[in-house]
Parts: sequence; structure tokens; C-alpha cells
Amino acid sequence: TAARLAGIAPTVFSSYSALAVATGSVNLGQGFPDVDGPAEVVEAARAALAAGHNQYAPGPGTPGLRAAIAEHQRERYGITLDPATEVVVTTGATEAVAAAVLGLVEPGDEVLVLEPWYDSYVAMLQVAGAVRVPVTLRAPDFRLDVAALRAAVTDRTRAILLNTPHNPTGTVLTDAELEAVAALAVEHDLLVITDEVYEHLTLDGRVHRPPATFPGMAERTLSISSLGKSFSLTGWKIGWATGPAHLVGALLAAKQWLTFTSGAPLQPAAEVALREHAHWPGELARDLQGRRDLLVSGLVQAGVVAPGAAPPRPEGTYFAVTDVAHLGWADGEAFCRALPERAGVVAIPLQGFGDSDAGTHLVRWTFCKRPEVLTQAVERLLAAD
Amino acid sequence: TAARLAGIAPTVFSSYSALAVATGSVNLGQGFPDVDGPAEVVEAARAALAAGHNQYAPGPGTPGLRAAIAEHQRERYGITLDPATEVVVTTGATEAVAAAVLGLVEPGDEVLVLEPWYDSYVAMLQVAGAVRVPVTLRAPDFRLDVAALRAAVTDRTRAILLNTPHNPTGTVLTDAELEAVAALAVEHDLLVITDEVYEHLTLDGRVHRPPATFPGMAERTLSISSLGKSFSLTGWKIGWATGPAHLVGALLAAKQWLTFTSGAPLQPAAEVALREHAHWPGELARDLQGRRDLLVSGLVQAGVVAPGAAPPRPEGTYFAVTDVAHLGWADGEAFCRALPERAGVVAIPLQGFGDSDAGTHLVRWTFCKRPEVLTQAVERLLAAD
Ligand SMILES: CSCCC(=O)C(=O)O
Ligand SMILES: CSCCC(=O)C(=O)O
Repeated sequence: TAARLAGIAPTVFSSYSALAVATGSVNLGQGFPDVDGPAEVVEAARAALAAGHNQYAPGPGTPGLRAAIAEHQRERYGITLDPATEVVVTTGATEAVAAAVLGLVEPGDEVLVLEPWYDSYVAMLQVAGAVRVPVTLRAPDFRLDVAALRAAVTDRTRAILLNTPHNPTGTVLTDAELEAVAALAVEHDLLVITDEVYEHLTLDGRVHRPPATFPGMAERTLSISSLGKSFSLTGWKIGWATGPAHLVGALLAAKQWLTFTSGAPLQPAAEVALREHAHWPGELARDLQGRRDLLVSGLVQAGVVAPGAAPPRPEGTYFAVTDVAHLGWADGEAFCRALPERAGVVAIPLQGFGDSDAGTHLVRWTFCKRPEVLTQAVERLLAAD
Repeated sequence: TAARLAGIAPTVFSSYSALAVATGSVNLGQGFPDVDGPAEVVEAARAALAAGHNQYAPGPGTPGLRAAIAEHQRERYGITLDPATEVVVTTGATEAVAAAVLGLVEPGDEVLVLEPWYDSYVAMLQVAGAVRVPVTLRAPDFRLDVAALRAAVTDRTRAILLNTPHNPTGTVLTDAELEAVAALAVEHDLLVITDEVYEHLTLDGRVHRPPATFPGMAERTLSISSLGKSFSLTGWKIGWATGPAHLVGALLAAKQWLTFTSGAPLQPAAEVALREHAHWPGELARDLQGRRDLLVSGLVQAGVVAPGAAPPRPEGTYFAVTDVAHLGWADGEAFCRALPERAGVVAIPLQGFGDSDAGTHLVRWTFCKRPEVLTQAVERLLAAD
């Protein structure tokens, strides 16, 4: 294996999903729902197959889907985009992140990244020869420490890679936090790459505001999102990047060599999702709120949350993070490795998702499964030794 | 745009397909058929959507598709593979090439590549900081010059990136040529990355023999192929790489960060294609042979082939290459830029696909379109000034 990948472990989501299958565990690890998105959208993909959308889609995506993405950004956020030059369809947000990093980040560039991070960010930063500079969201509230963010900037800082709503902590950055990010980015002329795949999955009435809408940000922000999380179709791997033409163009310059294009019969269906089912993600979010409460109260009941400690209350995404230090395991990974055997449940340790030791005892649980599955997981945790 | 992409033009297939749409031309440029593959395979994808294959497929591909790929290699070529460690599903062959280069090639490594090449190879070599070393297939017969290949090896040579059947020239490497490649690779302990997407599209009774089946090659060869060309489903972007676990593992180490996975509802259908329609690609090839003859005789008739010159006779793929020097255009690109206006036809100039000037006057035409489309293109060429 080439040196650019040295020391990077296989993505933990694959290994824990494999562990779940192998042990017959309830999989609260990898984030994917167990109920598919709108039947009409699935039907639209079936229709696209039958109608012959089976040859290469244009490299930047079908004109129809690009227009629907631009319209989504306008209607939802008041962002105006030229679909021809400011929107590119990708193979999920993952490809958009990879292509953004390869297309825009130089070797030696420092890139600020929120810790705990999503694993592909730092893998691609390493592939690009860039230097990650973690800014830690600390338990129990996982707020952005604006002073720490500011202190992390040097004259080699090129970019901020920002995810909000934040996987794995569930933090939704507030307007005040994003204003601080924007001020810093403008002051130091930084590029901002955002991962907003949970944009619609906000809870307790919170609203996601795209970083690109803050002062001075439109011209420096490459915004990434996808169909998978919003419409419970994670396997389709339809994502997109939007922003000024020079940034989207740089991403496309890399992306054309990574996959060229993908999902020709799925792109017309993604268009149908965005155009005709705009309310669906909000309904999913309202439903997820109840599932969050179900899971969290179960984790409290099962003693996964320390007695007396404030239970986690993620503001968005479909993940809740608990601190398992009080349970006496060496670390979160030891806890998660033993959990399938002990309880028949899989969860994800966060200690691989940072450079600091802030995540050593943190464990992530998804509540995107059906209520009966969450209940089953909780029952198993209650019954475990 | 980052320096690793400096000087790389947007993929010519996109720009010429856009030109075809904009000018209403018959598109004999980008290689994609205008008739979709087996209806039963399309139906299998529709069934997979309805059956709920809509969440993430495993990163390396579904177990069923990996097993079907391994079985295809065994039945067709006598190659034995462990589907769990020696087969990975990718987002088309393009992603497999990208991940192979990122996973295995170090900065400064020299990589031999046949010229005219496929554009993504050299783009990814540049992204990886590697040095391409072209070995030219020269008109009119486009054979591999084994002496030139041998002369191109230095002590910094790491790999040979080999495509056979060869796009764009249509050359199918002979057993003698592949034996020479194998001997050289063994002698210098080279990695061999093969692009065999046209493996089934061989003409005039020729048979493709995978480079991995030659002596000493199995342990050093990463073989890449895909569903798209074999089954006329280019838009599905289902590809794969096979080979020894250490090579496939290195590819997967990179691939997991590029897209993670893709095409969950299409992978079960790809399995159906490989398992239940193994004869389909051969039938397509027999049909393509007649279309090749139709196109080539039309190109002769229209004077695109120089009077008295031997017409092209591609042995595989769905491309024919002609030398347009005798037509008086400055170069092949000038010819192709003017052709939509002059004749309402799009073809691809090869001069961007090499470092030498061997391709300056070469133009590629696809014959993968319906006979009536080929006839229409020929009529337009005949009518052109
Ligand atoms: C791409 S696999 C991981 C899915 C996901 O977003 C998560 O579990 O965090
Ligand atoms: C990926 S677009 C190019 C399609 C193709 O293989 C070709 O035209 O050579």
C-alpha cells in the first residue's frame, strides 16, 4: 500500500457492520435507516430504469438533478446558484469530500477539522499530503470552542472542513458559532468545505443554517450534501457540491477522474425526491426525535449513561454519544469490541475519530432504526451482564 | 485548483458529448451504446429497488456480486479467487483505476502506459505524483512494440498500466505480446494494472486472454473490468478489481475514502447479469463486428480513410481509428472541432491522448450505435463539403 495511506485503518463503519452481521447483533453502529425513503422516489428510479436511463449521465450530473439541487438551495435557504457551473452531482458526499480535498488542498496546507471527525476527512487530507489541525468539540455539550478554533489558525491554514449538523456528536452549530467561523474565514481568507448531509435532520425545532449564508462566506464555501440521509436512501450514493464556479470547478476537475459519473438511473429519481417530496426529510426528523428519546431513555435505564449525569441530547443527525468511562472499561473501543458478545448490540467507539484523548471513552449509538429495533437493543443492554 | 491537477484538461468525452448535444450531431465520440443491455438485468435492478436494496452496500461490494465476479473469472479464464479478499466492487472501472493508482503508486514512481492512452490513467498518475512513461502503439496496425516497452523500463519503474482490448485503437494484445509483457514484469518485479473493460468485445473470432493468466503474472496483477461495456449499461457504473489480496486490499484502502460504496440496487442486478446472461456480451460482440464493418466501409466511402490506404480493422472495443492527415486539416483536433458544423457528426481526436506526436492526425469513431445511426453518420459525412 502506498505511503499516502500508511497508518490509516479500514473504515470503522465497515468493520463494525461486519461484526454486527457476524454476531447477530442489533446494529446501532453504521448510520443507515432500516426503512427506505419515499416509495414514489423508489418508483421513480424503477421508472428511470425502464425508460432507459442506463447509459452515462453527464459527468457533472443530469441537468434536471442539478437544476433541482439549485432550486432546493434557493427555496430552502435563499441561495442562488447557476446549475450549469455551480452544482455538481457526486457519488455521495464521500466522493464530494474526496474530490474537494484533491481539487483544492495542496500538500503542506493546514486544514482545521472538528474533532471527533468523520473518518474520510482525515484520510483524504493525508492522501493530499495536508496537515489536519483538530478543533475539539468536548463532552458533554460538544459546543464549538470559538477561541480554540481561532487559536488553531496559522499562516499555513488553507481551509476549514466543517460538518454541521455534526456527526458523530449531534451538535447543530448555532448562528453565533457560524458567525464566528465566518469572521475567522474572512479574516484569514480561508476556504470552507462543509458537510451538511444531515441538514434536514434537526431536532427540537432547531433549524440548520448553511455556513455559505453567513457574511463573506458565499464566495469561499463549497457546500456538500446528499440524498442518502435526507431521504433514507443511503445506498444510492447520490451527493452533490454547490458553491462558486471556481470551487465547484476545482472539485469537478478531480471528480471526473475518480468515478467520472455514477447512478444514471438514480439521478432522475433524486430529482423527483427534491422536487416533489421536499417535506419528507422534515417528517423524518420529527419522527427521529421520538426515536432519539426512546434510545436515550433506554441508555439511561440500562446504565450506559452514568447515574446522575445529564443524558445526551443531540440536536441533529441520527446519533447520540455517551461517555462510558464510569462503566470501567479501559476505553470506548474495548467497550464496543465486547458489546456484541455481552449484549448483542453494536455501537461505534469515537476514539479513532480524533488526535486528542477527548474521545477515549465516547461511544456513538444511532437512533435511525425502527422503534422496535431500538427497544430490542435497549432490552439487550438491560439484560447484559 | 490544486497543483496536482495543473494542466489537465477536462475529460474530452464530456466536452465532445456536450458539443454533440449542442450541435444536434450524431455522437460517435463518447463510447456508450444507444440500446440498453438485457431487459432481464434492468428488470433485476427494478426488483432490487422494490425489494429494498436501498441502503449502503458493503464497502467491498455485496457478497453475491463478489462471488459472481469470482465465478466469472473462474469459468471464463480459469482464474481462482477468494471473493472475500480478492474481489472488490467499484464505481466503474474509472474508480478502480483511481484507487489502484492512489493505493499502490508512490510519488516519483515511473509507470509505463500505452499511448494513445485513456485520459483518466495519466490524470491519476499525475495526481499521485507519478511519472508516466508512454509506450506508443503506432498506426496503422497499432501493435505493441515489445522492444520499445523493454527500453522504457528503468530502475524507477514501478508498474505497467495496460489496457487490452485497447481503447482507443481496438488492438487486442496477442499471446506473444502478453508473454513479453509478463516476462518483463517478472524480470523487473513490476506491478501490472490492467483495464479489461472490453474483455468480451473482441471481433473476428479473437479471444481476450487476461494478462493475469500469463506466467508469473497472477501474483503481481490487479485486473480491472466492469459491467458497463460488456452489458451495455454504462450508466450503472459497476466495476471491479480482482487479484491477490495484498493488491486488492491496497486498492480498497484508497477506494473506501473515494466513494465508500455505490449502486446498492444495481449490484444485485449486476450479479444477475454475470450469472444468468454470460452469453450476452459475446452476442453483442458478434453484432458489433457487423457495425464495425458498416462504419468502416462508410468512412472509406466518405473519403475519411485515405484512398488506397488500408482501412482500420479494430480487433476489439467499439472504436475505429482513422488518420485524417490526407484531408488537409492542421490536426485531428481541428478536424473534430469542425466536424459538427461541417457534417453534423462528432468524433474524438486522439492527440490529447499521448506525449508523442503519433496521434496528431488520428481520430476515433465509435461503432457502438445502432446501424441506422451509423448509416446516418456516414450519409452526413458523404454530404459534407
Ligand atoms: C459511509 S458509512 C458511514 C455512514 C455514516 O455516515 C456514519 O455511520 O457515520
Ligand atoms: C467515461 S466516458 C468515456 C467512455 C469511454 O470509455 C470512451 O469513450 O472511451
